[in-house]
Amino acid sequence: MKNADRKRTIIWEDPKKSARDAASISGFDYLKSIKDGRIKPPPVAMLVGYRIYEVDNGYAAFELNPAEYHYNPFATVHGGILSTLLDTTMTASVLSTLQKGYSCATVEIKVNFIKPVTAKTEILRCEAKPIHIGKRLVTVEGRLQDKNGELYAHGTSTCSIFKVSTI
Amino acid sequence: MKNADRKRTIIWEDPKKSARDAASISGFDYLKSIKDGRIKPPPVAMLVGYRIYEVDNGYAAFELNPAEYHYNPFATVHGGILSTLLDTTMTASVLSTLQKGYSCATVEIKVNFIKPVTAKTEILRCEAKPIHIGKRLVTVEGRLQDKNGELYAHGTSTCSIFKVSTI
Amino acid sequence: MKNADRKRTIIWEDPKKSARDAASISGFDYLKSIKDGRIKPPPVAMLVGYRIYEVDNGYAAFELNPAEYHYNPFATVHGGILSTLLDTTMTASVLSTLQKGYSCATVEIKVNFIKPVTAKTEILRCEAKPIHIGKRLVTVEGRLQDKNGELYAHGTSTCSIFKVSTI
Amino acid sequence: MKNADRKRTIIWEDPKKSARDAASISGFDYLKSIKDGRIKPPPVAMLVGYRIYEVDNGYAAFELNPAEYHYNPFATVHGGILSTLLDTTMTASVLSTLQKGYSCATVEIKVNFIKPVTAKTEILRCEAKPIHIGKRLVTVEGRLQDKNGELYAHGTSTCSIFKVSTI
Repeated sequence: MKNADRKRTIIWEDPKKSARDAASISGFDYLKSIKDGRIKPPPVAMLVGYRIYEVDNGYAAFELNPAEYHYNPFATVHGGILSTLLDTTMTASVLSTLQKGYSCATVEIKVNFIKPVTAKTEILRCEAKPIHIGKRLVTVEGRLQDKNGELYAHGTSTCSIFKVSTI
Repeated sequence: MKNADRKRTIIWEDPKKSARDAASISGFDYLKSIKDGRIKPPPVAMLVGYRIYEVDNGYAAFELNPAEYHYNPFATVHGGILSTLLDTTMTASVLSTLQKGYSCATVEIKVNFIKPVTAKTEILRCEAKPIHIGKRLVTVEGRLQDKNGELYAHGTSTCSIFKVSTI
Repeated sequence: MKNADRKRTIIWEDPKKSARDAASISGFDYLKSIKDGRIKPPPVAMLVGYRIYEVDNGYAAFELNPAEYHYNPFATVHGGILSTLLDTTMTASVLSTLQKGYSCATVEIKVNFIKPVTAKTEILRCEAKPIHIGKRLVTVEGRLQDKNGELYAHGTSTCSIFKVSTI
Repeated sequence: MKNADRKRTIIWEDPKKSARDAASISGFDYLKSIKDGRIKPPPVAMLVGYRIYEVDNGYAAFELNPAEYHYNPFATVHGGILSTLLDTTMTASVLSTLQKGYSCATVEIKVNFIKPVTAKTEILRCEAKPIHIGKRLVTVEGRLQDKNGELYAHGTSTCSIFKVSTI
């Protein structure tokens, strides 16, 4: 790669619009609308470059092309980028189970890093599903693999569920 | 903010150069050189927008201005961005203790999210220091606060230390 | 130690009595009463052999004499015993801040094991204090050291706070 | 239960013998020998009252009858007891994959508590299997359920693998 190519420009939409969209429909419908291009992804998805790949009731999958702009000082993808992808996918898998008027937030996340990711690593797929759905707290697990099933990172998180004001 | 302002362009350097720089001096000298502008920060620091604020033997602090481009679908800064900042700072605090020829990598990270961050939140400062430095494994803790000492997230991680080939 | 000495008998009180005691006073008063011998410790404290050493508002310390009956197959104290001590101390430090009519439970715990403990290890002291006290969730940290300040394990946990029916 | 019944006596064997046994055969053979009654369980298993239920290459299951002597001040089984069971089972599932001359130790454990356990809860079964087996570090997951598949706790851990001196 030439230095002139080491440039990345992202644009994003008013995040309040995205938040209103998210609040006006069920979690599943919101995620499906992003997947189908009817709702724009949130800013951080544009920044990091991940995209939703699949969503079902209690299941979410996101994809990321590892790139140089994800690199830490050691010329591998920063673990925080992998954590972001896991957090996104785990939260989405919880969101996919919630009715309109309910949302969720990550209380805590735990990630294990298994293998370094570089720009030469094939496209990464992150899959997640809830382990246990309680009234207020949900536990979730996620795995980050390439298409050959090679594992790069995995994690669990605890999410809280709460009511939101809808439109 | 107008939609025309919702655009961010980043540029970065050849990450192999950064990795060579990191391998050619001690961890402390590498971090100090980034702080003093003699070495360019790694690509992910340009992408996410954080910067080193202070480094000492067994201590690191980084700063981040929370911005709209960090937002998740709920119009708050994505937890993954906060995890990235904590991971960076915790790893740097370990790196600051290592001699030339040694490096470290995060084995696992655990983060608790305490309070939502928005673009209106003042500049965030993340501080970290090792809890225990073993021969091969180090445990670290970090906290993410604003300048008033308000806590937004905190975490711990386990890092592995290993020899690298130096120049 | 002779094989004839490898025997341990514990007795305990009706745990419903202990639970009623815990519900009838504030967390701090309950813990203080156990420390001062006015209320009997719960069964698990008799089983494992730990005891409260100090309690303050937002602080708890417990002690344990490591013994052969704590051993795993590798002739060291089982990590689960150390986790039990950390969980107890961390939860107690939260309980010490709660008014009568409120209790707490561990949502999740994370423990790092630093150094093996044997029966030759001096008495262990576990100290804990809350990191952040929210309305419903509290985060806590704890450390397990001997009297010389040697670190054997440390951890964090997330506790939930809830109302209980009082007498 | 009458107060006169609130008494428990345990006996155990010289743990050095158990450690020698563990070092003289493969992890799988050691666990199988305990299951089949040819080797005595370690002291902590006698103390807490759990027993091995099944072992295979990369799989372990343990059982526990929840009892009053496991109770915390709130008249439910102490989370540390559940953590001990999860730690035991997860470590055993790693041990089951190791050749003679290798052993493992828990570096860190993370447990989520889902539902309170009481003496009325049916027998608990804990199952675990490795997620990823590396050269030096292994990640593992475990779940604690009753026979109806009701989930009470789940966790993950990171174990280190190392050489031991054999007989």
